[in-house]
Amino acid sequence: MSAVDVSSEPEVVQKVGYNRRDLILYAAGIGCDELRFVYELDKNFSAFPTYPLVLAFRGTSQDVIDFNANQKSRPPPIPNVQNFDPSKGVHGDQSFELLKPIPLESQDFTMKSKLTGIWDGGKGAIVEDTSVLYDSKGEPIAKMVSSGFYIGYGGFGGAKRPKNPLDIPAPITPPEKSVTHKTNANQALLYRLSGDFNPLHADAEVARRIGFKDPILHGLCTYGNSARAILSAWVDNDVNRFVSIRGRFSSPVYPGETLRTDMWKVKEDGDKFLVAFQTRVVERNVVVINGGVAVLRKAGAKL
Amino acid sequence: MSAVDVSSEPEVVQKVGYNRRDLILYAAGIGCDELRFVYELDKNFSAFPTYPLVLAFRGTSQDVIDFNANQKSRPPPIPNVQNFDPSKGVHGDQSFELLKPIPLESQDFTMKSKLTGIWDGGKGAIVEDTSVLYDSKGEPIAKMVSSGFYIGYGGFGGAKRPKNPLDIPAPITPPEKSVTHKTNANQALLYRLSGDFNPLHADAEVARRIGFKDPILHGLCTYGNSARAILSAWVDNDVNRFVSIRGRFSSPVYPGETLRTDMWKVKEDGDKFLVAFQTRVVERNVVVINGGVAVLRKAGAKL
Repeated sequence: MSAVDVSSEPEVVQKVGYNRRDLILYAAGIGCDELRFVYELDKNFSAFPTYPLVLAFRGTSQDVIDFNANQKSRPPPIPNVQNFDPSKGVHGDQSFELLKPIPLESQDFTMKSKLTGIWDGGKGAIVEDTSVLYDSKGEPIAKMVSSGFYIGYGGFGGAKRPKNPLDIPAPITPPEKSVTHKTNANQALLYRLSGDFNPLHADAEVARRIGFKDPILHGLCTYGNSARAILSAWVDNDVNRFVSIRGRFSSPVYPGETLRTDMWKVKEDGDKFLVAFQTRVVERNVVVINGGVAVLRKAGAKL
Repeated sequence: MSAVDVSSEPEVVQKVGYNRRDLILYAAGIGCDELRFVYELDKNFSAFPTYPLVLAFRGTSQDVIDFNANQKSRPPPIPNVQNFDPSKGVHGDQSFELLKPIPLESQDFTMKSKLTGIWDGGKGAIVEDTSVLYDSKGEPIAKMVSSGFYIGYGGFGGAKRPKNPLDIPAPITPPEKSVTHKTNANQALLYRLSGDFNPLHADAEVARRIGFKDPILHGLCTYGNSARAILSAWVDNDVNRFVSIRGRFSSPVYPGETLRTDMWKVKEDGDKFLVAFQTRVVERNVVVINGGVAVLRKAGAKL
């Protein structure tokens, strides 16, 4: 039951960049119509806080990216796996922490990513990647931890993933606040222009081969939409009051479906507070992001 | 009643460029969800034929463009005008002719534009601009004629605009084909990312100052949507069968409204045929593009 040793995994260092049009395209991609996120002349124009989540996908490209050419060639070192099939992987969970405000553009930022853990999740293996975005002065702007769940590759007798101290089950009381957003039928086609060009989100044939009835929305698109719900419900869309967000992807979303994010303020912590959230597809009453927690600053708290 | 002499108007020569992401963004901006226009791996992936209409706006920029810095400083030479106010202008009509298939990307094309006519339209002055897009070999790809109607600057005793031989009133018979598309509430916010960053299409305050109740959709967005209706209804979305389109902007559209394009095949002309069209907002039963005519190639006709 020992942990898999990943200490010798290489760090991937990548130049990343974006401009104001990229920021707007991402915000529109997650469904924003708040002018501060989609209109460059708005007096509060800001980067949507979770924007750095797409940077590892896009690097510095302003064009579409050939999805197949961009795939990692090296499989993760899951024990006892002979023929690794990356299509067995689904996005498990994602945390995102903002360390510094996001500038409105950059062409010279750096993303450093590393495989930071492999755990035995029973039915599958959990592979964790950690990425940190640095600005041109080398200061960290955002830290992102992502896990993939690789179905069929678990049960190798490894350690279980440690519990994160922020893991909070959604309260059973009625939500304090709920925000509902209908996604557009073309939501995935738009979101992909921010960098994740996986055909699964556009091509019905590819989606069916993998086992979905239709192309699905990107998990990180739903995730961004939940962040949007949280920002509007709790901090009046003030990006300087956003600290972090985490959540687990529990079911796919189809473009055009309606997302409802239910939220509960669960804890105060100095000048911050914690909001638990859960996002569901209204039409099918299915939870799609579970165990969600956002950390926010109280009004007037220092950055 | 003589024509205004515009022969000494300068030609504006502009480098223009785009990539596949720009093509997809434009197609999504006019409402397309046909994979051949929004998915780069589709086997029929093509530029939407009217794409060149945005190139004069964007030049080679991949970013948002400061709208105010980009305004023409020189007013058109309308007779008897002392203090020219460009905000009195509305897009009057637009013709677009495709001369060669549009490549999937370019960074070295040239747009040449010139003021080609000023006419007395009674209540306003009609100012006509003609632009031609050239590829890197200097061959023309598309020709575009646009007119602006400048309210309050007519009645100067000048000549009326000559009738275009393609001007056909919409038939009074029921349409042969109709295609209906609901625009998204964020349609203008998305379309503007293709190059026309006029605040009128995003900022409610600016829109109200000009006299609209809300930000309006770009005329050329509606125009592209009509072209989309025509391509799907008559030529199975085969861009090689598109020849030209023209139409007159008769009323604004608000994002979120439903557009219905009514179409009539009015004439055969060798290996081509003419389709008259009229586009209206369903909710308000208002015609928004009038006198529309598209020229298309018959199936199997040579390019």
